[in-house]
Amino acid sequence: MIPNWIEQRASITPNRCALTYNNQSWTFEELHQISLQKAAALRAQGIEDNSRVAIYVTSSAELIHLLMGCMQLQVEMVLLNLRLSEAELAYQIDDAQVDAIIIEDHLTSHITNSTRQKILLSQVDGPCDRPLVAQQWQTDHTMTIMYTSGTTGNPKGVRQTVGNHVASATSSLYNSGLIEGDAWICTMPLFHISGFSMLCKSLLHGVRLDLYSSFDVKAVTKQLVEGSATRMSVVSLMLQKIVAQLESDDASVSPRFQMMLAGGGPIPQDYLKRAYRLGIKVTQTYGMTETASQTTTLANEDALRKIGSVGKALLFNEIRIDGAEKAGEIGEICIRGAHITPGYIGKYAQQSSTIDGWLYSGDLGYLDEEGYLYVADRRSDLIISGGENIYPAEIENVLITHPAVIDAGVCGVDDATWGQRPMAFVITEGQIGEQELQKHCERLLARYKLPLAIHIVDTLPRNGASKLMRRKLKELL
Amino acid sequence: MIPNWIEQRASITPNRCALTYNNQSWTFEELHQISLQKAAALRAQGIEDNSRVAIYVTSSAELIHLLMGCMQLQVEMVLLNLRLSEAELAYQIDDAQVDAIIIEDHLTSHITNSTRQKILLSQVDGPCDRPLVAQQWQTDHTMTIMYTSGTTGNPKGVRQTVGNHVASATSSLYNSGLIEGDAWICTMPLFHISGFSMLCKSLLHGVRLDLYSSFDVKAVTKQLVEGSATRMSVVSLMLQKIVAQLESDDASVSPRFQMMLAGGGPIPQDYLKRAYRLGIKVTQTYGMTETASQTTTLANEDALRKIGSVGKALLFNEIRIDGAEKAGEIGEICIRGAHITPGYIGKYAQQSSTIDGWLYSGDLGYLDEEGYLYVADRRSDLIISGGENIYPAEIENVLITHPAVIDAGVCGVDDATWGQRPMAFVITEGQIGEQELQKHCERLLARYKLPLAIHIVDTLPRNGASKLMRRKLKELL
Repeated sequence: MIPNWIEQRASITPNRCALTYNNQSWTFEELHQISLQKAAALRAQGIEDNSRVAIYVTSSAELIHLLMGCMQLQVEMVLLNLRLSEAELAYQIDDAQVDAIIIEDHLTSHITNSTRQKILLSQVDGPCDRPLVAQQWQTDHTMTIMYTSGTTGNPKGVRQTVGNHVASATSSLYNSGLIEGDAWICTMPLFHISGFSMLCKSLLHGVRLDLYSSFDVKAVTKQLVEGSATRMSVVSLMLQKIVAQLESDDASVSPRFQMMLAGGGPIPQDYLKRAYRLGIKVTQTYGMTETASQTTTLANEDALRKIGSVGKALLFNEIRIDGAEKAGEIGEICIRGAHITPGYIGKYAQQSSTIDGWLYSGDLGYLDEEGYLYVADRRSDLIISGGENIYPAEIENVLITHPAVIDAGVCGVDDATWGQRPMAFVITEGQIGEQELQKHCERLLARYKLPLAIHIVDTLPRNGASKLMRRKLKELL
Repeated sequence: MIPNWIEQRASITPNRCALTYNNQSWTFEELHQISLQKAAALRAQGIEDNSRVAIYVTSSAELIHLLMGCMQLQVEMVLLNLRLSEAELAYQIDDAQVDAIIIEDHLTSHITNSTRQKILLSQVDGPCDRPLVAQQWQTDHTMTIMYTSGTTGNPKGVRQTVGNHVASATSSLYNSGLIEGDAWICTMPLFHISGFSMLCKSLLHGVRLDLYSSFDVKAVTKQLVEGSATRMSVVSLMLQKIVAQLESDDASVSPRFQMMLAGGGPIPQDYLKRAYRLGIKVTQTYGMTETASQTTTLANEDALRKIGSVGKALLFNEIRIDGAEKAGEIGEICIRGAHITPGYIGKYAQQSSTIDGWLYSGDLGYLDEEGYLYVADRRSDLIISGGENIYPAEIENVLITHPAVIDAGVCGVDDATWGQRPMAFVITEGQIGEQELQKHCERLLARYKLPLAIHIVDTLPRNGASKLMRRKLKELL
């Protein structure tokens, strides 16, 4: 049991600024009051404490208020990715067996085929008597559920408990430090762990969150130059845009700015060096939904000496390479610590997430002589495009559902803008063109997952066990 | 299970300065290597992993090295107060049933009547092959045992687990923040939780410890003025000396200095105001052996607005007032959190330390309308003298053992230098003078516990249940 974060934070630093969004701001005490109001409004809509609710709302102060209202009721929040296709949304809503879906009013047309109770965001409102809420939370209580795709194609609902989020925020704090006036710029979607973990840090560390509904390179760069915020999380693409903006403005970053936490795949060396020249202290990190955000971090002082590395395990976390006997040998990256998910919901509820406490990440990597981790190959040919994870199997499974497609294979190809993009190869029968297959994908897949091209081929590279060798797909080009 | 602190800290920041003492310094990697050497030397002396060892060594770099060697073997360390009398030491050594006692070479005459194995500090040395040590520690493993006296007079051996120390360092970190180049001045004895918790912070937070074997007001003040350290723990008496020294030097504290953590009883208002004028950011705190150091803290910004308060519970800790229905009502201060001892050893091993997770501190206090804690009366008339806890019952029990003493009562009286000192009242039979009773006390009590005076009286104030009303003792003067 630990004290309710919202209550304790408001008790300790009631008047400190907690959140800014679109020129508005809220103190921790104001957020506390709003969270109680939202909790009462949720109950008035029939949402029970400890129930499971899907949330389909754009990143905004309103969403923060809603999430905090849900926390007060200890609702298990299924955070839906706003970029998903209707079919993908339907799968997650069905798999999670949610008690209700809260939808931003103008987005209702995105979720039409569910029989679950729908509540409009605008309905979660109204004045209220101060509701009774739990003053303590169980550490093993599931706070959030985020879907992540596995190697076999079906997305899995990953549970993140109160204890997972606390462990993550704590290890992060030991690593990053905490100074007076700290404030995080948050442009990452709150439905991803990268964004949600910033809300957790704000409440636990007691720092201000400067929230953006999407990445606004001009506004963010202005904050960095002024030094009005001290930390920010980015994916490589965002860092590249910031670097280009600063260079074009002939500006550099304020010395008050402490840390640019860069995750979601490697940063091109050239940009890393240019970032340094602009005064941006880049801290590269490695983490995933199952680790409730960052698990390793490359300190700023090592960034140029250990280019390509994602650093070392944060305090209280452990990394080992399964199958490697000594430094430099590649094996599966395994992770242990209090931040690791206890498991999944729905279809995969029975599947264990760990063996002897270790999460087998599926990613391949190695440790160098000094113990720095290098990710050699993302799990199962994972494609990372603009910071979003794309699993080849997801796209293959969609292609296969077309009656003219006999077999399909997808791999990632390098892309100057997005880092990577998916490329598809199919074996077909009958008359069928690429355009029709693309339309089929558009109906069933999020836009960012759409293949750059779909090549019709005669054979796909499969090994003796008929396993698709995705790394050999590129040779077909 | 969490990773071995020493190993992980040396892995994350090997080359950072970890410790300074008498113009020498050690990095975290150097301390790591020394800890392994000490672990091997301890094994060579017959000390087994997970055994229980008493330590009777002055605060010094040597002691830090020894403590870290013991940690590597997961030895339960019974930290003996260097100020205790031989009889007090004998009680603790016997109660703890230690497997061995490690004694600083020139202090062997202090412990003569124990049959336990004695090892000289100088014997824990020598080159070694790198020993195998556990890479993970159980969070419920007892790391340290410190004796604290209860209301009934017999000191109790309080267990502090790995998890207790981690929880304490973590809540402290959330409160104090952590900046680049942080360094703590440690002049508190390492056998007290106030000192030992700084070693824990050094290893966990990754900050430098500037260790002094005793409080050296000139050297410390020099560091504060230069800003060569950023934080320090003090008791009121030390703060008063620092203030006086700064005033006499016409100097003030560097703005680099972040926090003066003041515990062990209230600070006189006058000194608090003078400290502020000198630029000392005072953070008052409340904690005890059973809470593995601080549990509440009064933030610097509230120090003058809330004079007399010890602030609010640190993050993840909880405070409630047993028996109080509303703000302002006095009751027993109860504390809950992962930092609370799981219990005692020896004579009190069967006694539970908590009820429903709550530690009943024995201290009386109240919360004001804003939730700030005020300690109204230390537990059971606890006397705090120069930061050391003195329990009246201990002195009473010693007086009673004299054949001429029929009854005894002890209370604290205000003292300009020490804050408080004990004053004794006895009922005697036969011819006996104060001087003989003082000599009796000198044989059995630590010097700092000796009564300022022993008054021979006809009656002692006892209530209907014959309970001694110590607060009424002063009226006998």
